[in-house]
Amino acid sequence: MSANVDTIPLVHMISDTPSETVFACASSVEAHMEDFLSKAGLPSNLLDAVRYSVLAGGKRLRPVLTLLSCDAVGGRRADAMNAAAAMELIHAFSLVHDDLPAMDDDCLRRGQPTLHVHAGEAMAILAGDAMMSLAFELVSGAHGDDKARCSAVTVELARGTTSMIGGQVYDTLGGFPDGMGDRERLELIHRNKTGALIRVACRIGGICGEADAKQLDALTRYGEAVGLMFQIVDDLLDVTQSSEHLGKTAGKDETAGKLTFPSTIGLERSQAEVQRLLEVAREAVAPLGEPAGGLQELAGYLAVRTK
Amino acid sequence: MSANVDTIPLVHMISDTPSETVFACASSVEAHMEDFLSKAGLPSNLLDAVRYSVLAGGKRLRPVLTLLSCDAVGGRRADAMNAAAAMELIHAFSLVHDDLPAMDDDCLRRGQPTLHVHAGEAMAILAGDAMMSLAFELVSGAHGDDKARCSAVTVELARGTTSMIGGQVYDTLGGFPDGMGDRERLELIHRNKTGALIRVACRIGGICGEADAKQLDALTRYGEAVGLMFQIVDDLLDVTQSSEHLGKTAGKDETAGKLTFPSTIGLERSQAEVQRLLEVAREAVAPLGEPAGGLQELAGYLAVRTK
Repeated sequence: MSANVDTIPLVHMISDTPSETVFACASSVEAHMEDFLSKAGLPSNLLDAVRYSVLAGGKRLRPVLTLLSCDAVGGRRADAMNAAAAMELIHAFSLVHDDLPAMDDDCLRRGQPTLHVHAGEAMAILAGDAMMSLAFELVSGAHGDDKARCSAVTVELARGTTSMIGGQVYDTLGGFPDGMGDRERLELIHRNKTGALIRVACRIGGICGEADAKQLDALTRYGEAVGLMFQIVDDLLDVTQSSEHLGKTAGKDETAGKLTFPSTIGLERSQAEVQRLLEVAREAVAPLGEPAGGLQELAGYLAVRTK
Repeated sequence: MSANVDTIPLVHMISDTPSETVFACASSVEAHMEDFLSKAGLPSNLLDAVRYSVLAGGKRLRPVLTLLSCDAVGGRRADAMNAAAAMELIHAFSLVHDDLPAMDDDCLRRGQPTLHVHAGEAMAILAGDAMMSLAFELVSGAHGDDKARCSAVTVELARGTTSMIGGQVYDTLGGFPDGMGDRERLELIHRNKTGALIRVACRIGGICGEADAKQLDALTRYGEAVGLMFQIVDDLLDVTQSSEHLGKTAGKDETAGKLTFPSTIGLERSQAEVQRLLEVAREAVAPLGEPAGGLQELAGYLAVRTK
């Protein structure tokens, strides 16, 4: 059987349930985070708050991308585990802070009360902060990874996190360069707010798997396409699905008057853009062959997910 | 003239104005931060907010400790400049978040309106977050430093930041281990909230200056003594000085019913503890000789500072 991507059954690629492989790799990251957090020496109430936010479910998209990207370049998952856990901590921190009353003021996340509702606003601010510093400890080299690789991963993680925060600023507070139209602004928001961390999740997985320049470039292009696609699907779900189904408040973007793909280019063109980006993502990692099968499958799932 | 610490004039050691040497090294860190921030690609409003918080003055104690610790082990200041700037960014982030309405709800800092008063609460949360990720970029190795050293510095910075956040949790939300008395709780708060980052500032300076194990141990003991001393002096100033003089709200600890050294062991014993810790700090770095003159002088200033 050839290693060509076309041998992967299409039915897997467009399934709206990720396969067991994807689930299995998410649970290994959860176990790793659980172990790391229990040894981090946090005050008991802070540990509870971090665990509440981090271990309460979610798709684990970013750490899964990291592990699958490591697979895709023939690396060992064990070498990417700290980086994968760090990706999820950064993502979880951003959700906790974005949900705060002064920000999106949201009370529901992953089907549970948001952290500031559960543990108070001061704790939500501090637990979010701690998740970020814990993430940087994970990739710092404190836990036995190769030092030069840790440095490269830390560069990616730091820049990705700053870009994500910048994206949230654009989305909620403006600060755009002069003369940008709505479509340009929308892409700038998404490229930073969601895209940067998804791109970095893929690159970090590649770096941990000792990708060469060509492989890293393929993962980068995959991550960029999947990142933008993810956000367009998110915008579409916000319009088309219920809060109960999503486990978070639906219809929020419209209420808040936010720039979204459906509001800027319409539902149909948004859906077409998802299909186009899926193709870009699949083609980007096609040269990596069979080891990139996980990434192929995940992209397909992300294009048709309903939550 | 011998390199013995006793040759440094005592009048310098107990001056309440830091010498020109200390001022000069603070301004080099400011210039370095200014340059780094201007190239960080932040949205314009986020850049303004970060600059407002970071470049509005302050003692620059932590970066100065980093540079003087590098001096003390015979290192080159240029090798510690990124780490010094990172220390200040972490400190500034913690002030911005601690001042938030849901936390200490403070409106005055360094003689200016706090960031959430100046730019709104959402921006204060996001700018604080960005300062942390920018700090980790600075020490990541993205800016030409030795990779193995960057890894060691990142470990210290990440753990110090997490400890600082834990200290703020203890101080404002509890979460203490069972069975601790007031004095033990107070030391736990201070060792984490202020002490951890000051200790790390010294250790990082040593690491950047290629300290050997004995030198790093001396800097660690110095940092621990100075860190606790700094906080006791802070507690004393909160009782004895005006808001106008401090450039931040005075008398706050008592109003908030916080555990402080004066409230736990009394004014006189607090002052005696400052003197004792000054001696511990001076003795710790005495074996490093003349290169540790800056640290000797700084410790003396910190014991008698009035703001």
